[in-house]
Amino acid sequence: MTTLYNDPAEFAEEQLLGFVDLYSDRLRGVPGGVVCHRGPEPIVAVVVGGGSGHYPAFAGLVGPGFASGAVVGNIFTSPSAAQVYSVAKAADQGRGVVLTFGNYAGDVMNFGIAADRLRREGIDTRIVLVTDDVASSDVAEQRRGIAGDANAATRTFGVAFSGCTMPGAREPLFAVPNGHMGVGLGIHGEPGIHDAPIVSAKELAGMLVDGILAARPDSDSRRAAVIVNGLGTTKHEELFLLWNEIRPLLDAAGLVPVEPEVGELVTSLDMGGCSLTLTWLDDDLERAWRADAYAPGYRKQTSAVADLNPVTFGAGDSDSAAAPAPSAAGAALAPLVRDGLHEMQRTLQRNEDELGRIDAVAGDGDHGRGMVRGIDAAVRAVDMLSDAGPGWMLRAAGRAWAADAGGTSGVLWGAGLEAAGDALTDSREVYEADAATEAVTAFAEAIADLGRAEIGDKTLVDALLPFRDALEERHAAGDSAATAWTAAAEVAAGAAEATRTLTPKKGRARPLAEKSVGTPDAGATSFALLVGALATLANAPVQGKED
Amino acid sequence: MTTLYNDPAEFAEEQLLGFVDLYSDRLRGVPGGVVCHRGPEPIVAVVVGGGSGHYPAFAGLVGPGFASGAVVGNIFTSPSAAQVYSVAKAADQGRGVVLTFGNYAGDVMNFGIAADRLRREGIDTRIVLVTDDVASSDVAEQRRGIAGDANAATRTFGVAFSGCTMPGAREPLFAVPNGHMGVGLGIHGEPGIHDAPIVSAKELAGMLVDGILAARPDSDSRRAAVIVNGLGTTKHEELFLLWNEIRPLLDAAGLVPVEPEVGELVTSLDMGGCSLTLTWLDDDLERAWRADAYAPGYRKQTSAVADLNPVTFGAGDSDSAAAPAPSAAGAALAPLVRDGLHEMQRTLQRNEDELGRIDAVAGDGDHGRGMVRGIDAAVRAVDMLSDAGPGWMLRAAGRAWAADAGGTSGVLWGAGLEAAGDALTDSREVYEADAATEAVTAFAEAIADLGRAEIGDKTLVDALLPFRDALEERHAAGDSAATAWTAAAEVAAGAAEATRTLTPKKGRARPLAEKSVGTPDAGATSFALLVGALATLANAPVQGKED
Repeated sequence: MTTLYNDPAEFAEEQLLGFVDLYSDRLRGVPGGVVCHRGPEPIVAVVVGGGSGHYPAFAGLVGPGFASGAVVGNIFTSPSAAQVYSVAKAADQGRGVVLTFGNYAGDVMNFGIAADRLRREGIDTRIVLVTDDVASSDVAEQRRGIAGDANAATRTFGVAFSGCTMPGAREPLFAVPNGHMGVGLGIHGEPGIHDAPIVSAKELAGMLVDGILAARPDSDSRRAAVIVNGLGTTKHEELFLLWNEIRPLLDAAGLVPVEPEVGELVTSLDMGGCSLTLTWLDDDLERAWRADAYAPGYRKQTSAVADLNPVTFGAGDSDSAAAPAPSAAGAALAPLVRDGLHEMQRTLQRNEDELGRIDAVAGDGDHGRGMVRGIDAAVRAVDMLSDAGPGWMLRAAGRAWAADAGGTSGVLWGAGLEAAGDALTDSREVYEADAATEAVTAFAEAIADLGRAEIGDKTLVDALLPFRDALEERHAAGDSAATAWTAAAEVAAGAAEATRTLTPKKGRARPLAEKSVGTPDAGATSFALLVGALATLANAPVQGKED
Repeated sequence: MTTLYNDPAEFAEEQLLGFVDLYSDRLRGVPGGVVCHRGPEPIVAVVVGGGSGHYPAFAGLVGPGFASGAVVGNIFTSPSAAQVYSVAKAADQGRGVVLTFGNYAGDVMNFGIAADRLRREGIDTRIVLVTDDVASSDVAEQRRGIAGDANAATRTFGVAFSGCTMPGAREPLFAVPNGHMGVGLGIHGEPGIHDAPIVSAKELAGMLVDGILAARPDSDSRRAAVIVNGLGTTKHEELFLLWNEIRPLLDAAGLVPVEPEVGELVTSLDMGGCSLTLTWLDDDLERAWRADAYAPGYRKQTSAVADLNPVTFGAGDSDSAAAPAPSAAGAALAPLVRDGLHEMQRTLQRNEDELGRIDAVAGDGDHGRGMVRGIDAAVRAVDMLSDAGPGWMLRAAGRAWAADAGGTSGVLWGAGLEAAGDALTDSREVYEADAATEAVTAFAEAIADLGRAEIGDKTLVDALLPFRDALEERHAAGDSAATAWTAAAEVAAGAAEATRTLTPKKGRARPLAEKSVGTPDAGATSFALLVGALATLANAPVQGKED
């Protein structure tokens, strides 16, 4: 809804004061609206206008290369004939005036009266009435105007998702039934011509393109200026996505889109909806469409991109370099790393739902999903390698995990595995009993560095550091790697369980800290599960070397 | 809410495809994001980035004069370190890389990992962490980043009016209690730091400016770059209005706003809210702030406005020219025109509520208010004239009426009175008995021309044309002007009453046509009331001439 105002009755006037102040480098206020500063050569004055609430239409189009003036009415209300006359008179440079506006009763009357008065004073005044909205009537000259001010060659078709709320009002001017859209939108708070269920962006693109092609003007041009317009609350990202669906349909129809404009060009306060406009171009229209402009709400500058060269970005820049050949010891260790990752994948898939449930108590519940996404990517990456050593494998696994898992735990696990791989390398003559401890120490250090969590913060670190300490301790005491790992895994399980009593100090769970007490931390729990599952495998490689 | 998508999980990727297609004149897609085409001279590569859903941040800032690359994560989600590395690698031109991003855990980790990797490869990589949000912490380095990428000198403070809705979701990520706003907004769907009742734009401007000045950096500069940012659903008109309140507060604080930017610079899907950002400028920062840029979402071109001259628009161009002296007969008629307008004013003021009630049955209920606004303006305009003739007076009355009344009836009454004034002129030797008939005929013709309504359409015309016909008939039959007017006024009253049985064919009442049956037309009713009230006055001027 419209939220920022003082006296709702003064909304249109007060916003115009702010606007004129901001763009005083290119326009000024005059009674009835705004007028562009003049360039060195006099030109025909193009004066646009209508009600307020449609920014950048209409005042936002006043600037060098675009409109010479805009008449600014109250919200969704035609300006008076006196306003039109005043603005046109100020904009006129002795070369005549073109008045252009949408086909609405009030605008037609007031611009018409002003045109008569200007003509009586000897000013050559022409009118271009905009009637581009194909949904509003089958008869071209009875159609409403929406976005197409090169009228005879222009067609527009749009849909509304939600109504706009006027300054001071508590309810929108209309509502679209839930899950529906109004087909054939208007831009003055009126509902669509009929309601239809909301469809996907792909289907909507088809509907809009079909609607416009069915009413195409009598032109054999294959070149079309294109506008994909958002009404206010339908955002740029959505419009870009819609354009991604519209573009191939235009290609398939044999049309060449020329410098398409996708964004907010004619809005209706905070209305939800969008429209597609096509203007079939002849040489004159194409020159005008491509021309530079520097209006507040529409800026185009051909020279700015004239001397640029696209970056070349080939396969050589990516991660696909072949793994260097490992040492014999490295080659022997590699299958165990791969087996370990597969075991982790099975463990996480089995526990995905339970980890999600624990995380949902005070977090967003995506820990199980994120961990599975990470390990799946890691296993995919490692399974694609042949003849790689254990360090290379762990680095590949870590990068893939971080890239796909998302979330903080994804970054941490990815960085930890990469650091473990860096510690192991692929080229040792022999991997000693402490290799696993070295890898875990590097893993823990990377995570502590990145996450900056401490013991007691109720994070992964609450299981990780006790695990690392126990592992180092048992190793120093002379235990075999397998025995040490198994003992340390038991410590991790106990430590994870003990996080149940803590209140979180880090991450998204912090605002809901109290709710979390009584449930263990999801990150500590998944870590303990994984090192537990690896306990059996941990015996194999290092034991082999010890024998 | 977010409405346009196919698979919600593919939203970020699909919108990026559309974006890259649209701006292929200045950027291209690379794994992980987008990179600007290169100019002739190599430059330091500035790489921005973060999650999607903030357009024009971050991909919309890539272009000549602004960012060299943007890393594009999923919605509100940090891109991975691999993405950051990939984009920075493609953007690097051998002159080093600046990575700049907001202070969020995921971004800090992933950009940090990528920076380490870039440095290991010998690429000089620097980090600028954005921590401008003064509401998020009292400690500067713990603050979140919102909109200020010249960090040490920048402060931001904002409020949220409504939460955003993710693609595929049915509910917004948070809701602000009715009539409240979240003070200290975040841009990832998190609620404000605390809720407060919504205030006027003027009060909000004070709150934002005070909040920023309380946390101003240690700078003795009086020059500040300013951003007034809308979060998505808070529209340009509202932001302009807010700027109109902020500007004098900055002036009062002794700050000079330098090229303020007011619009959508960092959004959060369809979130409602706004923020104010100030950057205290030194000479280097001011040069950078004023520099040209041609990114999709930020374009500035000093040369476009360099050679322009403001239009001079003085009093001579307005309506204030002095009235020419009327003839003796004109001077005699003028006071009766003035008296007539005053009588009309009394009549409309007396009947304002009743006319509103009639109009509200099938219209928007503003007919009484609009007519009173029109006659008030007309009387004001005429009372300011001295020594004007009847034609001049009616023209002035008509223009004032049309300018102030708004709505279709305002245009019609204004044009009608102006036409009547044109018909009477000020300079006749004598005003004959048929002068009133002439004026009414001109009045009716102007309204019929403009309104294009016909008898039976249930408009003003249903009383106006019978009145004119009766007047002409009685005049032709030899009645005195006063007698003729009185008889015609009775016809008008009957005709207005008879509109009760009609269904409307014109105007806004059409969609509610059936509801209107049983109630007379408001425009026809007010016309009949006015000619009835004038019946007595009508005797005076023309009778005088007949004697």
